[in-house]
Amino acid sequence: MNMFGMFAVRTRSAMVGFQIANCVQSRCSLMGITVAQIDKEVAKLLELKAQLGGDDGKHQFVLKTAKGTRDYNPKQMAIREKVFNTIISCFKRHGAETIDTPVFELKETLTGKYGEDSKLIYDLKDQGGELLSLRYDLTVPFARYLAMNKITNIKRYHIAKVYRRDNPAMTRGRYREFYQCDFDIAGQYDGMVPDAECLRIVHEILSELDLGDFRIKVNDRRILDGMFAVSGVPDDMFRTICSTVDKLDKMPWEDVKREMVNEKGLSEEAADQIGKYVSMQGGMDLAERLLQDHKMSQSKQACAGLSDIKLLFSYLQLFQVTDKVVFDLSLARGLDYYTGVIYEAVLSQPGVQSSSNEVQNGSPADECISVGSVAGGGRYDGLVGMFDPNGKKVPCVGVSIGIERIFSFMEQKAEALALKIRTTEVQVMVASAQKNLMEERLKLVTELWNAGIKAEVMYKRNPKLLSQLQHCEDSGIPLVAILGEQELKDGVVKLRVVATREEVDISRATLIEEIRRRTSEA
Amino acid sequence: MNMFGMFAVRTRSAMVGFQIANCVQSRCSLMGITVAQIDKEVAKLLELKAQLGGDDGKHQFVLKTAKGTRDYNPKQMAIREKVFNTIISCFKRHGAETIDTPVFELKETLTGKYGEDSKLIYDLKDQGGELLSLRYDLTVPFARYLAMNKITNIKRYHIAKVYRRDNPAMTRGRYREFYQCDFDIAGQYDGMVPDAECLRIVHEILSELDLGDFRIKVNDRRILDGMFAVSGVPDDMFRTICSTVDKLDKMPWEDVKREMVNEKGLSEEAADQIGKYVSMQGGMDLAERLLQDHKMSQSKQACAGLSDIKLLFSYLQLFQVTDKVVFDLSLARGLDYYTGVIYEAVLSQPGVQSSSNEVQNGSPADECISVGSVAGGGRYDGLVGMFDPNGKKVPCVGVSIGIERIFSFMEQKAEALALKIRTTEVQVMVASAQKNLMEERLKLVTELWNAGIKAEVMYKRNPKLLSQLQHCEDSGIPLVAILGEQELKDGVVKLRVVATREEVDISRATLIEEIRRRTSEA
Repeated sequence: MNMFGMFAVRTRSAMVGFQIANCVQSRCSLMGITVAQIDKEVAKLLELKAQLGGDDGKHQFVLKTAKGTRDYNPKQMAIREKVFNTIISCFKRHGAETIDTPVFELKETLTGKYGEDSKLIYDLKDQGGELLSLRYDLTVPFARYLAMNKITNIKRYHIAKVYRRDNPAMTRGRYREFYQCDFDIAGQYDGMVPDAECLRIVHEILSELDLGDFRIKVNDRRILDGMFAVSGVPDDMFRTICSTVDKLDKMPWEDVKREMVNEKGLSEEAADQIGKYVSMQGGMDLAERLLQDHKMSQSKQACAGLSDIKLLFSYLQLFQVTDKVVFDLSLARGLDYYTGVIYEAVLSQPGVQSSSNEVQNGSPADECISVGSVAGGGRYDGLVGMFDPNGKKVPCVGVSIGIERIFSFMEQKAEALALKIRTTEVQVMVASAQKNLMEERLKLVTELWNAGIKAEVMYKRNPKLLSQLQHCEDSGIPLVAILGEQELKDGVVKLRVVATREEVDISRATLIEEIRRRTSEA
Repeated sequence: MNMFGMFAVRTRSAMVGFQIANCVQSRCSLMGITVAQIDKEVAKLLELKAQLGGDDGKHQFVLKTAKGTRDYNPKQMAIREKVFNTIISCFKRHGAETIDTPVFELKETLTGKYGEDSKLIYDLKDQGGELLSLRYDLTVPFARYLAMNKITNIKRYHIAKVYRRDNPAMTRGRYREFYQCDFDIAGQYDGMVPDAECLRIVHEILSELDLGDFRIKVNDRRILDGMFAVSGVPDDMFRTICSTVDKLDKMPWEDVKREMVNEKGLSEEAADQIGKYVSMQGGMDLAERLLQDHKMSQSKQACAGLSDIKLLFSYLQLFQVTDKVVFDLSLARGLDYYTGVIYEAVLSQPGVQSSSNEVQNGSPADECISVGSVAGGGRYDGLVGMFDPNGKKVPCVGVSIGIERIFSFMEQKAEALALKIRTTEVQVMVASAQKNLMEERLKLVTELWNAGIKAEVMYKRNPKLLSQLQHCEDSGIPLVAILGEQELKDGVVKLRVVATREEVDISRATLIEEIRRRTSEA
């Protein structure tokens, strides 16, 4: 086709598209077409698209993972396993059971739970049948699980991937597919003990992972709402102003105020009053002071929240974690479903690479450099009731550890320290120095596997001894069991210690015991 | 709106729909509209649909998981953890590293890899950006990973969920979301040793899981192709006839033959010749006999496959697993990407519930009752090359353990034996018989947590002793540390053994040691 012909086709089809658009849109909206009819039209158009070749034939295959996602190589998996083990041990130490839920839920299960963030939910294509979405967090599926199974009491953890069509920033550990490690306590209990245990868990995990200093900010939705009320924010603006306050860890107060006043239409006076409150942080003393505050004390809600903060701190003292916890009125958290106490943990490490982009500073509540939030959670007493046919509520409180940032941090640390990370646990390599001993090697490695020894053998018929030893060096295998004609005749195996190059003849009868003895500390 | 009005609206909108359909379809197909234009139209229609309320308002929310998926409750998770531990231990014993890949891939990464099964792939909705699909297995993502990272040698395992829009049969362990446990060896090696190790791994895992008797069927794609060639199947029908042969474990031979002849148009003579071959099973001897078979020996491909089967069996002897392995010419396996040896493991247990629907019997290759395939795999030497820009091949062989059926089996077994399965690992419950001791309980449980003891405390201010003891009975907690005014005065704790009801006073100083000692075997 020559240039002129192509131009003619393009112009013509553009005009057709325009006509279709007009005819479809105007008639539908004017005349009350039904959804079923639209679905049929869409199906026909998509079939037509498939016939046209899917993408106008302009495409070339790209070898990559989907945007915002990553593979984990064996070294990264070894680090991941270590982090998971620390976290799971902590959850188990606190007596949690574990559950699992599917990666996708009915779309409507997620609808109306996430506020402004709902636009980030991944939907599955309608291929006939139910409309599905990938889970956005583990909390909503947990609430669905409780309501569906009529469970009113459980302490559970759940470690799984969640999905958000967010703008990825992968060097800083922000992905579209990422793990959450959630611990939640459901049940009607006397106030604030489960809430305090969640904070104790964050404290234990962040301490054990040895990530440097950290802080856990605590606030309460009722205090925020009370603060908005006494500052003169109209009721119907609470959520949107709360979203703006939530940006305080990324923007200076001036910008937050500008958004409140210029974009959201809040009065300057109200904004200034909020500004005074959100710069406050402290401990139990601050809660006491605010209970006396002539404005704040006018709000029943705020008073209930402040009393609970006081109670929370008394338990945190018993749990020995007050050193890291700060009552911080600027903490808001984005999600809609929180009803009481909320919290968020941030690592604070001057000089860490990943920090500089994260914080333009100016947050009145945070003086040290932050590498961003690594855990967050709170109380959500209304969520389960949203799923129950009779609206029966199950009070819940929980925490989610966001480990991608922790992975990034640990990977950087491992690289910086040039740590040698083993990716297998092989105890011994079965090798030979001479040719034609493959059958003997396979026989010996079978004996070792039968005894539960982790053992490898090279798949070549006649590998060089040097390459067998090199493999041990590379992957940290501590022992080599070397077979030769002489050894076979003598009923022994030459056992070589890779680190020291020491070699000893061991009788076949005691070999397994010897390998176990020499690798038992590993 | 009265009945007449409603009728009028419905009729009118139905007519509009018809008009739109016609105008859209005829103009598009006649005049060469582009894909981009169609996409725009679709987006507009969907927006319109959303405005109409999504589903014409006829809908009621249903509290359920998506079709073909399930939650795992804590008991099921405990069983799952046990199965995973067995499988992972085996993979580690054989020196495998592990990797992870995202749950979705670019759609085109999966395109053209699964043959007729491609229609079962879940696609994500086009929300702008890349077109994505949920992974269908772990093998294609593994091949993509190797090509992307230019890895030519690796032994890795990968345990993760995969997704198939298949017809679920959940009581028999067939789900749309299910786990695969894959072990693969990539690299250019001397023939059949890695292949034999994969079979050894299946043997180890199925033996250790104690699932009763099992069999591992082995065949080779080259033998199948050779068999088709010498039986007179036209070249271009190999794949489709292979798919039909694959149904032999679910249909009697007569039905398979009917499909070949009546549906696929194969000659009766060719079908009968295939029928003779696919009824054969044996070991190394059968491979030798077929190498002498006057028809089969005419196919170079078949001879290469048969020689490899002989070599494979010689290694299987060294690996001590020939007792369960059968060379079975009826084994075909559905997936397109296999190029050499293929295998499949089936549990065979007369009287197991889940078996009856699975096998209408008649399969000439299987006399005992089968509960279906629990593992499968084979050699796929061409798959990585499909991703490499230069087509560079990396030979691979692997096996996938399908554990949902194993879970179903173990769950049934646990239920039948009324096994008490613990879902937590709590060693001790901190309790009190008297009121107003919550602070003391929290102090003590903190001490225990600090020492790494798995400990629980009730969240009520004044729980009854009986309800605290009952919780221990229910969840299998072996010890209770009971605090009272007297104990606090004496500096002791009453340690109660739940099973025997024995109680001893232990000094606070030695409590941790005592708890460790008494729960060390657990």
